[in-house]
Amino acid sequence: MNEIIFKNMCIIGVGLIGGSLARAAKLAGVVGKVTGTGRSQAHLEEALNLGVIDEFDLDFKIAIKSADLIVIATPVGAIQSVLEEIKDSIPENAIITDVGSTKGSVLEAAKNVFGELPSRFIPGHPIAGNEKSGVIASFIKLFNGRRVILTPQLHSDLKAVDKIKSLWMACGAEVVLTSVEHHDTILAATSHLPHALAFSLVNTLSRMDDKNDIFKFAAGGFDDFTRVASSNPQMWSDICIANKDSLIDVLDKFTDDLENLKNAIKSQDATELKKQFEHAKKVRDSVTRVFPIAY
Amino acid sequence: MNEIIFKNMCIIGVGLIGGSLARAAKLAGVVGKVTGTGRSQAHLEEALNLGVIDEFDLDFKIAIKSADLIVIATPVGAIQSVLEEIKDSIPENAIITDVGSTKGSVLEAAKNVFGELPSRFIPGHPIAGNEKSGVIASFIKLFNGRRVILTPQLHSDLKAVDKIKSLWMACGAEVVLTSVEHHDTILAATSHLPHALAFSLVNTLSRMDDKNDIFKFAAGGFDDFTRVASSNPQMWSDICIANKDSLIDVLDKFTDDLENLKNAIKSQDATELKKQFEHAKKVRDSVTRVFPIAY
Repeated sequence: MNEIIFKNMCIIGVGLIGGSLARAAKLAGVVGKVTGTGRSQAHLEEALNLGVIDEFDLDFKIAIKSADLIVIATPVGAIQSVLEEIKDSIPENAIITDVGSTKGSVLEAAKNVFGELPSRFIPGHPIAGNEKSGVIASFIKLFNGRRVILTPQLHSDLKAVDKIKSLWMACGAEVVLTSVEHHDTILAATSHLPHALAFSLVNTLSRMDDKNDIFKFAAGGFDDFTRVASSNPQMWSDICIANKDSLIDVLDKFTDDLENLKNAIKSQDATELKKQFEHAKKVRDSVTRVFPIAY
Repeated sequence: MNEIIFKNMCIIGVGLIGGSLARAAKLAGVVGKVTGTGRSQAHLEEALNLGVIDEFDLDFKIAIKSADLIVIATPVGAIQSVLEEIKDSIPENAIITDVGSTKGSVLEAAKNVFGELPSRFIPGHPIAGNEKSGVIASFIKLFNGRRVILTPQLHSDLKAVDKIKSLWMACGAEVVLTSVEHHDTILAATSHLPHALAFSLVNTLSRMDDKNDIFKFAAGGFDDFTRVASSNPQMWSDICIANKDSLIDVLDKFTDDLENLKNAIKSQDATELKKQFEHAKKVRDSVTRVFPIAY
């Protein structure tokens, strides 16, 4: 049996991630009461009815008043305004974390509000999720076997880091500590870029003359490729802006490579095409062997 | 119980598609003997040992000599040379079909070899497959619930069209007739472009400094997005060249759209980003409802 790590976890933004964390942490027995807060009364009532949270208050300040853990699980674009709203009401020894997909922007938001990242604010990012949104989509096993990246700073409270680490491990995740820059580069490449390409591909196809048949005949490759285009538009608009520099950098690299591929197709250069595809296959096959994830 | 449609089906190229067709058609009881042929004795022996074919001959001419159906299931780039090799040995009433992912190139290959598409050559394309290759990956249900596109011409033998249609339906597929141009446009958009993007994305990422961690932290979006980059390089090099014009056309449209997205990110235009993502989500969600395929 696990010991309680946090007596009162307050989740700001009880959606897919926040809701799944509440479910998993409760089941693991590492949190006591779970309080929810957010902008929408209807969403919070839904979370309460689903048993994901024990109580809620629409006023962030009241919701956090007895919390020993505050989890900010809103879209990343809202984190700074959330911090501004709660900054004078954070209980003295409370630990703060977030689940945002970009970490440079969170660091910046915290600096804008507090001057520097508070020592007990441990930024985090569970590499988990799917194209669905809302507390209705949340489930206990979302973090099972997934990695959670924490990006504490040099002055961070090590005890707080340990507690956040234990919380995620109790939810089935593997916890890794990296720098903010490393996190943002990696996520731009493996998550933000693929999402941007999927959104863009669906839009391109939806404007073609044959669009009805295009979606009717769409096969496996297309289906897999564009699943993430069903993801939350607000959340992804926030992410693209929050991780702008890393994303533009990898987008530029990608469009250069795509231009090379296009030229090889135009000039019918079978040798070059086969070389490019063989390289990709070799790399992709090795990834499958190392990391056979289910999602 | 189905009736035999073809007494002797000869498959040229017994891989994932050819092998799965042999398995499904045998189980459905619509073919008698299945003869295999191809370039590799080892692959044909494997197909024989798996029970996918009843016999084989490495000499195409001998393999087809008593066939009433010849299925060309090689990569599309090899179809013209296959036709050249067999053209003087095709039994008088035999029907020919193929399973190539591009149809304009097959029409052209047939014209180059025969002057025009023979009336009993009914080009076809099962919209099925996965990132695996070879007869070892073949399975009975590959075509179950999938669409097969046939592209007969005005002078095509209607009885031959009907027989090919019945063969695929017996294998669980839905058969649709379209023009060659329509087929090639649709497939460029929904299959060839996504494959090209997946190959290109894996190559871009494999050249980044953080590449070890990039593949270590790859999450769901990336995994789904790049699965098809494990596909057969020779086959996809052939397809890109065979469907060059349609593919370049949709690639150009896509890179224009991606450039717009990049500019919206650069200028932090949240309204434009959200608009683009909302449009994509709306379209993608509607596709899921219409066409919830499994692969």
